Amino acid sequence: MPFSFTITNRDRSTKARTGTLKTPHGEIATPCFMPCGTKATVKTFTNDELKELGCEIILGNTYHLMLRPGANLVAEMGGLHKWINWDRPMLTDSGGFQVFSLKGLRKITEEGVTFKSHIDGSTHFLSPEEAIGIQEKLGADIMMAFDECPPHDADKEYTRKSMERTHRWLARCQKAQTRKDQTLFPIIQGGLHLDLREESAKACLDADPFGIAIGGVAVGEGKEEMWRVTDFVAPLLPESKPHYLMGIGEPDDLVRGVAAGIDMFDCVIPTRLARHGCFWNIDGVRTAIDKPEFAKDQNPLSSKCSCYACKNHSRSYIKHLMREKEILGARLLSIHNVNYLMQLMSEIRLSIANNTFTSLYDRFFKKSR
Amino acid sequence: MPFSFTITNRDRSTKARTGTLKTPHGEIATPCFMPCGTKATVKTFTNDELKELGCEIILGNTYHLMLRPGANLVAEMGGLHKWINWDRPMLTDSGGFQVFSLKGLRKITEEGVTFKSHIDGSTHFLSPEEAIGIQEKLGADIMMAFDECPPHDADKEYTRKSMERTHRWLARCQKAQTRKDQTLFPIIQGGLHLDLREESAKACLDADPFGIAIGGVAVGEGKEEMWRVTDFVAPLLPESKPHYLMGIGEPDDLVRGVAAGIDMFDCVIPTRLARHGCFWNIDGVRTAIDKPEFAKDQNPLSSKCSCYACKNHSRSYIKHLMREKEILGARLLSIHNVNYLMQLMSEIRLSIANNTFTSLYDRFFKKSR
Repeated sequence: MPFSFTITNRDRSTKARTGTLKTPHGEIATPCFMPCGTKATVKTFTNDELKELGCEIILGNTYHLMLRPGANLVAEMGGLHKWINWDRPMLTDSGGFQVFSLKGLRKITEEGVTFKSHIDGSTHFLSPEEAIGIQEKLGADIMMAFDECPPHDADKEYTRKSMERTHRWLARCQKAQTRKDQTLFPIIQGGLHLDLREESAKACLDADPFGIAIGGVAVGEGKEEMWRVTDFVAPLLPESKPHYLMGIGEPDDLVRGVAAGIDMFDCVIPTRLARHGCFWNIDGVRTAIDKPEFAKDQNPLSSKCSCYACKNHSRSYIKHLMREKEILGARLLSIHNVNYLMQLMSEIRLSIANNTFTSLYDRFFKKSR
Repeated sequence: MPFSFTITNRDRSTKARTGTLKTPHGEIATPCFMPCGTKATVKTFTNDELKELGCEIILGNTYHLMLRPGANLVAEMGGLHKWINWDRPMLTDSGGFQVFSLKGLRKITEEGVTFKSHIDGSTHFLSPEEAIGIQEKLGADIMMAFDECPPHDADKEYTRKSMERTHRWLARCQKAQTRKDQTLFPIIQGGLHLDLREESAKACLDADPFGIAIGGVAVGEGKEEMWRVTDFVAPLLPESKPHYLMGIGEPDDLVRGVAAGIDMFDCVIPTRLARHGCFWNIDGVRTAIDKPEFAKDQNPLSSKCSCYACKNHSRSYIKHLMREKEILGARLLSIHNVNYLMQLMSEIRLSIANNTFTSLYDRFFKKSR
């Protein structure tokens, strides 16, 4: 099997650990943050720029890519890696999360989900077999199982039914997989119900996957609930497997997730914040570039940051660029934000190796732990 | 005087020549194409990317910058060079061209022009003194005189009156200039009337400028008329001064302009075309990336191009990016298009030095000369 996961360091006081995740397209140092290349591009970036920031793995999005340009086209072009010219590891989601977000535009049966495209209203069908078929055509190193992510406020009965179907779908996903150079992560569901979460973790682990994901978090339930669930589920996962917490990306959440034993994170937040004119300051606090006091501020976005934006440009200039809707503004803020998370993960890995992770943690949570 | 212009090579059969234009911020090899940084950024580019393409001088736009962020803010930030962190030569236009494009929103008197901002309708005033005052605050190496650019279909009487006022305004611009580290180019007007053009060239040269510009071309008069005027005016200009043909940027026009003895060109066309999904192919022909046959085309935009886009990405991928309105698409096409013009100018300079400019010219004009 062309995948392996080796734990290299363990923190003494938390569940944090560092590791090396080997894939057919290279190694990933964990814990890691994975920027989202939703439509086969991490918004505003070239691949070289991502590499310069230390990015070792990016995501692609099954739902968006199956609609445009279509999985067959990507396959004809040699797969996602070749088509976008990214030679490092990739992960594709299963499309489940997006499809289930299309409320009113989809119909769920045991077989799969019929849905209408948000682009042109055309009808499409996703099932475990289709989701794996598409992900095999895309060819990312890591595929995700086709799951249902129910609304966080669904009743327990629905959440249970949905979860059980997700487990049956997992078996169908595994059966549908034909390629040996890709690995398939199951996704733990169960909403805010800890007994369901425990049941789901067990069902996913029974499938003996290489790695495992916690899904259905950060879907509107609030941070407290999210952490109640994640702090409960994470310890149920075997130490030997990579643990992926889906859709998480605020700086403090990354730190907290690592403390809970999470190895992989993804989120659109760094580039989305950037396009909306926000950046993380030196304390990891969201800051809007359109503040009046930035108009004549010759300082960089963040005083200790070494990203291209901070080394070359002032808040004054970047504020102007964003006001004028200039692409360079979104680029500079995106570089800063992705770099912020990449540097944070690098610092986290180093602190775990040096056994100073606790003080890094305390910097974010002010000893409130 | 911190400016000099030295002719280094002359073509034997045309008026083409190479030269070195020295400014306080460095030297420019001529003939050169100057990308437009209208709102203090060449759209989609970082400064480093422009330098990598061999760009030695960029433009800034007085009209846009006086409205936002305002010349005083730029001056407080240390001037345009420091504010945008560009350490090579710059040129600012006078705002005249934009202001006179605001038909119905402006009133012209001998004193100057009162106009309403296209952004918020607020009232502003530009005069020769104001235009120079603003350009001194911006601090570009080369300033342009405040001129009126009348519509190409204005009657001769209006065109004459406008031209004569432009000449009076030139004298006021020169009188208003206080900084010694900037040079001021007058702009020859006179519409499509060769006798007026001759008169205007004489008036501008009587002011004894370091360099001189031909304005009021490429304003809707059509290529034939544009070249009738330019081919008439260019030979009237002293060989010793740099000649700037304003607003010109299609590949064939650059070649033809060089043959007429032009040393400097500017145009928004390479980045504007890019944002509209167009690129120059290997023959310098505009090509739309949204052609159906590009969907599965694994070739680069142009087979012999060495730009970042062509070295790393296929037409198939770039077509997808543009269809999805992804910023990377506009970036890649902009890189390709600006590189195309930079490479063309470099090739032109080399051909003049090697006395092979005629064959380059014939490549564009198929011996129809």
